[in-house]
Amino acid sequence: MDRFMEIAYKEALYGISKKHGGPFGAVIVKDGKVISKAHNQVLLKNDPTAHAEVVAIRKACRKLNTIDLGGCTLYASAKPCPMCIGVIQWSRIKDVFFSGDYEDTKKLNFDDQSFYEDFEAEDDHWEQIDEEHFDTLIQAFESCKNDIKY
Amino acid sequence: MDRFMEIAYKEALYGISKKHGGPFGAVIVKDGKVISKAHNQVLLKNDPTAHAEVVAIRKACRKLNTIDLGGCTLYASAKPCPMCIGVIQWSRIKDVFFSGDYEDTKKLNFDDQSFYEDFEAEDDHWEQIDEEHFDTLIQAFESCKNDIKY
Repeated sequence: MDRFMEIAYKEALYGISKKHGGPFGAVIVKDGKVISKAHNQVLLKNDPTAHAEVVAIRKACRKLNTIDLGGCTLYASAKPCPMCIGVIQWSRIKDVFFSGDYEDTKKLNFDDQSFYEDFEAEDDHWEQIDEEHFDTLIQAFESCKNDIKY
Repeated sequence: MDRFMEIAYKEALYGISKKHGGPFGAVIVKDGKVISKAHNQVLLKNDPTAHAEVVAIRKACRKLNTIDLGGCTLYASAKPCPMCIGVIQWSRIKDVFFSGDYEDTKKLNFDDQSFYEDFEAEDDHWEQIDEEHFDTLIQAFESCKNDIKY
């Protein structure tokens, strides 16, 4: 078994044993070294965003003191869900290795795959309002542009 | 202006003034009452996941002591990015009002929209490995099924 994936599995198994959340672990690696590792803590933290990948990415950012993890590789015990793909994209991680896929996690009643179906979310439940006011925020942000590096 | 959107805007403007991150605010409402509000804190927290929506949802979960925010409504100063859509889906929020759209935020160099283009992420950079081991995690999780409510 891949040595980094093995660490992700150990995290996942630890999380299960502690009843912290689902059977998911993640490891961030840079230049052959583990930068961070984490397991799913949704139940422990009562936080639907506390997926292993999210927790590992947040830890890696703190450790490397940057929000740009370009050059890092993510190992995940299962294929990252749509939310985690978004986090991976924002953190600029390109390389991802995963073990289980959505068919595997579906056996445990995780319904990530269905998220794709209504991902555009442009249905009856989403509505754009007050668009004319957004210029206020654009102007406020632009007036600080030289101070805010984002 | 919608009164809840106005609160989201105030959060966004506060965040800009403090240089905490982008011009984004979010409010979670239930039964006509504000449950939580937040602004983007990516720069403050050095955390690429600290979008207004994510912070507001995490706060609301803590406040209501649940990971299921079904029945809540989200107000966001701009259209939630793919990551935030995932968080919204996991938190089971259905109703979303937003002000600016991706065309507006693109003016500020936020590239959310491009995330959709490679969202499936099934390119050269993603690889499934060690799939045969995933049954280990399925079995470990299932053996705890009655203890872990997830």
